[in-house]
Amino acid sequence: MSKKDKKQIYKPRPISGFPEWLPEVRAVEQKMLDKIRAVYERYGYCNIETPSVEELEVIAAKGEDVDKEIYVLERLQAEPDDKKSARLALHFDQTVPFARYVAQHFSDLTFPFKRYQMQKVWRGERPQMGRMREFYQCDIDVINVDSLPISFDAEVAAICYEALEALEIGKVQLRISNRKILLGLLEDLSIQDSTEVLRAIDKLEKIGVEEVRKLLEKTDAKGFEDLIIKLSQIKVRSSKELKENLDTIKEEITAQTYIEGIEELQFVLNQLSHLPEHAVVADLSIVRGLDYYTGTVYETQLLDVPEFTGSVCSGGRYDDLAGNYINKKLPGVGISIGFSRLFDVLRQTGKIQPSAKSPAHVFMILPEEETRQRAAETARILRQRGYNVEQHHAPQKINKQLSQAEKKGIAYVWLPFADGHKVKNLQTGEQVDADPNSWEMDDE
Amino acid sequence: MSKKDKKQIYKPRPISGFPEWLPEVRAVEQKMLDKIRAVYERYGYCNIETPSVEELEVIAAKGEDVDKEIYVLERLQAEPDDKKSARLALHFDQTVPFARYVAQHFSDLTFPFKRYQMQKVWRGERPQMGRMREFYQCDIDVINVDSLPISFDAEVAAICYEALEALEIGKVQLRISNRKILLGLLEDLSIQDSTEVLRAIDKLEKIGVEEVRKLLEKTDAKGFEDLIIKLSQIKVRSSKELKENLDTIKEEITAQTYIEGIEELQFVLNQLSHLPEHAVVADLSIVRGLDYYTGTVYETQLLDVPEFTGSVCSGGRYDDLAGNYINKKLPGVGISIGFSRLFDVLRQTGKIQPSAKSPAHVFMILPEEETRQRAAETARILRQRGYNVEQHHAPQKINKQLSQAEKKGIAYVWLPFADGHKVKNLQTGEQVDADPNSWEMDDE
Repeated sequence: MSKKDKKQIYKPRPISGFPEWLPEVRAVEQKMLDKIRAVYERYGYCNIETPSVEELEVIAAKGEDVDKEIYVLERLQAEPDDKKSARLALHFDQTVPFARYVAQHFSDLTFPFKRYQMQKVWRGERPQMGRMREFYQCDIDVINVDSLPISFDAEVAAICYEALEALEIGKVQLRISNRKILLGLLEDLSIQDSTEVLRAIDKLEKIGVEEVRKLLEKTDAKGFEDLIIKLSQIKVRSSKELKENLDTIKEEITAQTYIEGIEELQFVLNQLSHLPEHAVVADLSIVRGLDYYTGTVYETQLLDVPEFTGSVCSGGRYDDLAGNYINKKLPGVGISIGFSRLFDVLRQTGKIQPSAKSPAHVFMILPEEETRQRAAETARILRQRGYNVEQHHAPQKINKQLSQAEKKGIAYVWLPFADGHKVKNLQTGEQVDADPNSWEMDDE
Repeated sequence: MSKKDKKQIYKPRPISGFPEWLPEVRAVEQKMLDKIRAVYERYGYCNIETPSVEELEVIAAKGEDVDKEIYVLERLQAEPDDKKSARLALHFDQTVPFARYVAQHFSDLTFPFKRYQMQKVWRGERPQMGRMREFYQCDIDVINVDSLPISFDAEVAAICYEALEALEIGKVQLRISNRKILLGLLEDLSIQDSTEVLRAIDKLEKIGVEEVRKLLEKTDAKGFEDLIIKLSQIKVRSSKELKENLDTIKEEITAQTYIEGIEELQFVLNQLSHLPEHAVVADLSIVRGLDYYTGTVYETQLLDVPEFTGSVCSGGRYDDLAGNYINKKLPGVGISIGFSRLFDVLRQTGKIQPSAKSPAHVFMILPEEETRQRAAETARILRQRGYNVEQHHAPQKINKQLSQAEKKGIAYVWLPFADGHKVKNLQTGEQVDADPNSWEMDDE
């Protein structure tokens, strides 16, 4: 064989940061995404999908922090008129595209606008455990023109809890705070620059009290470290306890922001009192420091998956969604499930069982060439009755076909013998006579 | 107001070639995608999803024709070690990623490997009617090691038909051929170079018989134009008619390829004889000229959507899927629905009705602040019973709330009055007493 004839093989390898699953794992992922979607729709939120790209000018409007993570598209072979059009970049979240979408389609939307969005987003950061370059986010937001009732803050929290619950990954805990409480305290203390204080508190869980105290000493809040840390350490279950704890912080705080914050958080806690005991906690260490939130803020913990550090689902209330793109005030509240990261941790810690390799309920045996029509017709009947049926196409030995069904994890094998149909349950080994027009799968 | 205070508004505009829908249109798109997925799973095909990107070296392996359509990713702010890693490009179809996937995960897959894949793909071509830069493809393929039974060619055709049928867009017609028939004839005629002949026949529908004749005159087949055109114009419904028509072409064709092609096509037609009269036609003008198909080839026409020129769904049999990436022979057969193009044509020709703006079945009125808990509790009961329920959050006048439900196209309004629940059907105007624990929606 000459060198020229020898085929060049390019052995493919995984691309770091771009996850890809085997069918039996993808099936689990797909089912989880379906469940989240079902919960989002159960609350009447509609779906939108935005293009994977935005104009670079739109996407870079948010701030310079994320700029270094942005992927820009280039044509492999650029054409002369490419330069005339705007540069396109893959979106790195769903919030910027959502804001742009609302501004662009403002007159066609009905407000309050309740939408969910479950797409892939891309960030060109260095991949590491739990950080990916391509991942799913499952976002839900409601926005309105000018003002939005506070009870939506409770609704969004309930949806988030229910969506995570639906995934059957153990106990889920919502940690809720309201930024107005800490901001109101700072206002009361006449502390001008709150940014550095929020940043310090945001690190409480990560670096501990003593380190945060050191950070606070370097801020405008110097002298009030104890007070601020004490407030941030409040972690209670009920609105009654919240008030009791806050009353011990400092006598008579009259800042309107502070009072509002407490009232809002109490209202949200009360609205969520139907959830199980472990489900909700008011945790004043939650500030979502660097974000654009203005009131309620959420994080979520998987109590039974300690390996998942950080928040699997977070969000909050914001005053103005799309100020960069439209001259309207659009306050809203929303949360985002960092789905791919969650999924990857669950997978790596053995918390999810791979599904069968086939979505089929029934594997249709082909006993011999002469039975082909009978097998096909039987499969059609079962499919019409709602069963997923995989057919075998070559008349091999039945044991070979059976082992194929077993390998694929299919529950039932159908044997369309010329002298009568039989069905074998591969789990129990039981084999019975059956009629494709009336056969029913056992409940699992 | 100083210039500095004045907010800079960046008015967003649509990006050419990247479609985006309003919620009521997206809901239809989502339902259609769900239906296609359900049909694919009904036949036991499993889902896979590959990353949106491949290494440029993998993706460009297919040929230079598509190179100019490839989008390459660049980090907006490249880092020093970026150069060390491979260049990444957005996939332009799902076949190359599928081939790479199979090669990479070969030892973890069960063969015959039946998979479907429904993702967005990107092509940086000039956008025009029906051509997009970002679009959904819905692919289904089965591959096996070394050989694959011909009955899969019939299965894949049946799936394609059923998936399009499920979309309720009128009558669908599969046009099936087998390239071996034409290739066998050319072999019989001792015509060496078949490529240009196939290219010419591929244009039959577009440019007509006379132009194709002119093209054929310039090929190795010069002198046999009539024969080749006559064969290509065969369009029959049954395997019997197929044989009868072919027998009139030329006496005694003994080329093995020719005989195989006829047998295969006859087998496929026979396997599809359960489909309605209009559903299948053997059409020997179908060659899918420039592709890598080796046997059965399909195209599909929407008989009731003449505006859709070209094939909404096409595919065929190939001898070797992943030869570029693995040293195994992997023959397969598959089809691809060009979903976004189909959807866009249906939308533009008024063939699809926008859905409601909300997925909710029930709109929960908030009659007054005092009824909030009752409304929330009622919504929870209904949700647990499987209904999608949107709640109103501010105690406005009931008529205002009703008109909100109407605007969103929600079918039922629930009035949780303190002295009893009432449900109003917004279509009929009928209002009845109801119990959230037992109420049932009318069948639509």
